[in-house]
Amino acid sequence: MQTGNLHWRVVLVRPRNPLNIGAAARAMANFGFRELVVVEPYEPVWQETRSAVGAEEVVQSAYRVDHVREAIADCTLVIGTTAGSGRNLDRGMVPLNHLPAWLESRLGRVAPFAGAPEGERVTTRTDPAALEQAALLFGSEKTGLSTEVLSYCHVLVRIPTTEECPSMNLGQAVALCCYELTRAGAVSAFPTAATVHISAPANVHSLDHLFERAVRILDHVGYLKPKSRDAMLIKLRRILFDLELTNSDVKILGGILAQIDWKFENPSRSSG
Amino acid sequence: MQTGNLHWRVVLVRPRNPLNIGAAARAMANFGFRELVVVEPYEPVWQETRSAVGAEEVVQSAYRVDHVREAIADCTLVIGTTAGSGRNLDRGMVPLNHLPAWLESRLGRVAPFAGAPEGERVTTRTDPAALEQAALLFGSEKTGLSTEVLSYCHVLVRIPTTEECPSMNLGQAVALCCYELTRAGAVSAFPTAATVHISAPANVHSLDHLFERAVRILDHVGYLKPKSRDAMLIKLRRILFDLELTNSDVKILGGILAQIDWKFENPSRSSG
Repeated sequence: MQTGNLHWRVVLVRPRNPLNIGAAARAMANFGFRELVVVEPYEPVWQETRSAVGAEEVVQSAYRVDHVREAIADCTLVIGTTAGSGRNLDRGMVPLNHLPAWLESRLGRVAPFAGAPEGERVTTRTDPAALEQAALLFGSEKTGLSTEVLSYCHVLVRIPTTEECPSMNLGQAVALCCYELTRAGAVSAFPTAATVHISAPANVHSLDHLFERAVRILDHVGYLKPKSRDAMLIKLRRILFDLELTNSDVKILGGILAQIDWKFENPSRSSG
Repeated sequence: MQTGNLHWRVVLVRPRNPLNIGAAARAMANFGFRELVVVEPYEPVWQETRSAVGAEEVVQSAYRVDHVREAIADCTLVIGTTAGSGRNLDRGMVPLNHLPAWLESRLGRVAPFAGAPEGERVTTRTDPAALEQAALLFGSEKTGLSTEVLSYCHVLVRIPTTEECPSMNLGQAVALCCYELTRAGAVSAFPTAATVHISAPANVHSLDHLFERAVRILDHVGYLKPKSRDAMLIKLRRILFDLELTNSDVKILGGILAQIDWKFENPSRSSG
């Protein structure tokens, strides 16, 4: 997965549960991440790793290394992950939801521009064609990332879990990070509620027509009392117009009213 | 978990894997969600559900019901979840990352204000002290949510996964939704001053009751044909639930249906 000019690699450090490697791979595939490296897995764990549905490519191309240095040697950005509010308070931590903004500010390095009036700043960017290799590191289920591994990280990202239950499932932590990294960009390619084709809103003419039909039935069944009739009609029209019905809704409701009408006129017949 | 004036419940519909119930509970606990309901789990799955670390409280207080209606009866907001870009294209879907904004706009309903000059609109809000019960529904690992269950949902939320690997692990999907709902520090609090009181939104129980009344009349007048009855009921329920009726609306519509009923039973009498 490439976001901005970053090319991402997910690195699992000493995972203990083979199910978690498969789960991490699937979450990666869900959000378009492909490169998975596993550092020093317990040998049986590595052997038992099975591909999750849809993540075959990620699992098959995954590779193992013996030290975290090998997994991140070519990286210009290394991000460690941690959950909850706990350890490492001596280091600045970026909450996961602020990570995109943090990346943005890091990649578009803000520097004073020599010729600009005092106080004005311009944004200078590195060559957009140059890809930076970035790694996202996850520690083992029990202990998280070691102090040694953390020392390689440019920044620590904290998943904002509760104090009562800070520790996350490894696969879920990977899912959250992959989601957040693609959250702002990836979704725009998908249809939003506004672009999905649904029936057009009904116009006043057809709503009025529907309303008149309904009023005839209300008169027939004696719902409208002479004394309050006018006020009630205004109230009911207000309700109907507030519903924001579509043309399709109006057609269906019109059919229902017609059938009720028909039954009142033909009480003993069953419909065809 | 409470965000804004929403109180959240997570509902798993027919989960097949006991590990996933525990994983969902842990993800909920990670982000402060407490209320878990499982609809019609396979019995062995329910028996085998074990508490995940830190999620004991969620798992122990979880309960099972036999039909989704029981899980959402008291809800005024029901959200269905789906992954990928697939089915249900006839309905508007909100991408998960837009859900907080969608909730914001739904809770602060904009409605014409009677006394305002033409063209002006004011925002009317429900009583800020009144909590709305909301449900977040997740389908089974294999099939997702059924069309019938979807017909109860006010909105569908789509987790923006890739086309290559659209289907998500259940526990990871729960984690993403809980994360997104708490991500921004919850939906912003409501202003306590200058709020206009309007009738509270109707809950699923009262909408269902109204719907059943309407169905009896539709059956009586012969609107529902045996061949298409089930599909039509789902379609009609969808329309009714989309209308976002208030308690006041439901009361009025219930009165109208009662009067129509009465007239069918007493065709020659005029009402008192």
